[in-house]
Amino acid sequence: MAPRQTVDLVIYAAHVIPVAPRDLVLRDAAVVIHDTRIVALLPKLEAQDRFVGLQEQHLDRHIGLPGLINLHTHAPMTLFRGLGDDKVLLDWLAEDIWPMEKKFMIRSGTTCFNNMYFFPDEICGVLESTGMRGAPNLKKYGPGCHDLITVTVAPHSPYTVGEETLLKVDALVKKYDARIHIHLHETEAECNDSEQLNRASMCCHKSDQKLHPLANFKRLGLLSERLVCAHMTHLTDEEIDDVAHAGAHVVHCPSSNLKLASGIARVTEMLRRGVNVTLGTDGAASNNSLDMLAEMKPAALLAKAESCQSTTCSVSAAEALQMATLNSARALGLDQEIGSIEVGKRADIIAIECDSIEMLPMYNAVSHVVYAAGRKHVSDVWEASASQSSAYNC
Amino acid sequence: MAPRQTVDLVIYAAHVIPVAPRDLVLRDAAVVIHDTRIVALLPKLEAQDRFVGLQEQHLDRHIGLPGLINLHTHAPMTLFRGLGDDKVLLDWLAEDIWPMEKKFMIRSGTTCFNNMYFFPDEICGVLESTGMRGAPNLKKYGPGCHDLITVTVAPHSPYTVGEETLLKVDALVKKYDARIHIHLHETEAECNDSEQLNRASMCCHKSDQKLHPLANFKRLGLLSERLVCAHMTHLTDEEIDDVAHAGAHVVHCPSSNLKLASGIARVTEMLRRGVNVTLGTDGAASNNSLDMLAEMKPAALLAKAESCQSTTCSVSAAEALQMATLNSARALGLDQEIGSIEVGKRADIIAIECDSIEMLPMYNAVSHVVYAAGRKHVSDVWEASASQSSAYNC
Repeated sequence: MAPRQTVDLVIYAAHVIPVAPRDLVLRDAAVVIHDTRIVALLPKLEAQDRFVGLQEQHLDRHIGLPGLINLHTHAPMTLFRGLGDDKVLLDWLAEDIWPMEKKFMIRSGTTCFNNMYFFPDEICGVLESTGMRGAPNLKKYGPGCHDLITVTVAPHSPYTVGEETLLKVDALVKKYDARIHIHLHETEAECNDSEQLNRASMCCHKSDQKLHPLANFKRLGLLSERLVCAHMTHLTDEEIDDVAHAGAHVVHCPSSNLKLASGIARVTEMLRRGVNVTLGTDGAASNNSLDMLAEMKPAALLAKAESCQSTTCSVSAAEALQMATLNSARALGLDQEIGSIEVGKRADIIAIECDSIEMLPMYNAVSHVVYAAGRKHVSDVWEASASQSSAYNC
Repeated sequence: MAPRQTVDLVIYAAHVIPVAPRDLVLRDAAVVIHDTRIVALLPKLEAQDRFVGLQEQHLDRHIGLPGLINLHTHAPMTLFRGLGDDKVLLDWLAEDIWPMEKKFMIRSGTTCFNNMYFFPDEICGVLESTGMRGAPNLKKYGPGCHDLITVTVAPHSPYTVGEETLLKVDALVKKYDARIHIHLHETEAECNDSEQLNRASMCCHKSDQKLHPLANFKRLGLLSERLVCAHMTHLTDEEIDDVAHAGAHVVHCPSSNLKLASGIARVTEMLRRGVNVTLGTDGAASNNSLDMLAEMKPAALLAKAESCQSTTCSVSAAEALQMATLNSARALGLDQEIGSIEVGKRADIIAIECDSIEMLPMYNAVSHVVYAAGRKHVSDVWEASASQSSAYNC
């Protein structure tokens, strides 16, 4: 028998949901991790024959799955709005509050978030010092500055940022192979107002031309795989096809869209037509929770109501989980690094305890993660950068 | 100064939401309890002058509010479906599992539930022995048998139970001043099928008459304040007025209605037209959680989307909380006993911890309970019967 290979960490779990392939659940499996990356995913008995972990974690009553990725939030300031924004506050936020928030988000199973707000440098400092993955909007920290940091440029919306600036942003993003993170088609009023604005301003166009913001983005060349569009509650079939063909990404924010009466995004149709749909909580003012575990359930349920289909023809639990993990990773250009438990990827992994009475009986681990689990069931989180792997016992 | 009155329990809380009146939040208040009933609700300092508790609980970082009432669930068997139904199982359920479930439901802040399923006697035995309030459907336990037990008769639906049986049920319910608990207008198909059924069967009616189940109930004299209707996702304005005028009660089950693609109930319009709308989780198969704290959020959010109004013209957080407490109590005929923190009522009270990072900052305690709190924040539950008061540290 060949000698066993020594590795950094072996996580043994009663159930593992790798996310890719989508509907797979492995029983009594092991995730083998070395140098911050997943080097094997295999049956427990086989792992015990082949590997010895410097650390070994036995999760006999748990589900292991990839860390959740919150693709649209305004994390820091919304929780602390009304407290002013002077420098002393900023120090306090960066040194005390943001590390605490990071810990809180991690405790609910989120290992990466795509942020849109002021003070990106301070956010980057917190990510760097505390080991959580994030995509703050660009300022001092450039692309490639740190393994845990993915840069997105976040102009607020087409109705607050002019076309000239948007084109500059796109040029910048193209240069750095980064992403634009923007609110788009959030409300019907945004679409209607845009039609009027375009009619009034575009002398070079037919006077009766009606352009939704998305159509205007297409005209400007902004609709591309670099575009990550939050909300998108109002889309025609043709617009959905445009998004799919361009390879742009949609961040579905079901709770926020309901709370602000923005509408219900046509997620079933988007997925059917090939759009990469991801998931986000939005900020604490419009949700009011930054809990991704609690966001997958309305994502799956609302799609059933919106499409009038309660079957898996609509959004299944497995698809909702994929939206919150692999699809979100893809939107950030990180799908070779995170978003699923696959050999070669970084070990961003969470464990959900499934032995408490509210989780019994368990017929389907994926269904339980999406429909029944809450943040109290997240037991462990592992997050891996190039230089370090952090473990959190929640 | 008058001597202080000795009472069983004084709960001091940083915030108290009495629910009646609806939008009130008291700061630094005390709930004084004696002989299982609330005898005073007053400022902390005044309470300290007037009362001394044999027990005193200081909840300095908490919100106190009435226990939540789950008005439509199929609690026991759905969690254990597929396991058979022989007597040995029943013993096991009654002796081991239901007490555990009760503990679980109590831990999420639910102090009373309206159940629809088989084995009502066994459920009653568990309620009696463990001190949780419930409304199982009628069998051996008659009305008035036990302070914690309120009897409802639960014919499944108009499409599975014949008119003759429904009329007998109503006679029984009238005699005992009890309630009928039934699925009604759960889906569009139920309404359409009913039209056809009525057209085919009612020779005494005009051949072109189309009767929805609700209209048929009205015709039969079943639409009254004794009727508790679960779901009601498809109602015309006229039907909503009929429900309001009859004083019948609606149980809104937002998660279940979404999951089964049944539709979105017109809660905003129902409340506007005077219907008593309550809240339920439905069973574990269609939700899949029996967590009332997690059900208030979709109740408030969906109403905003359905009515296209994000303001309090739709369902506010305070109204969602009222649906889950006082309105539910009223539907069971228990609004003089439970559902709010008012002098004279039983002390069914829960406490929600509001000092953890995900609950900060707190501008509005009601908003936090409905939109941000989860079962992990429920810290204490008190439940009072005529003979005993039970306290649970969660």
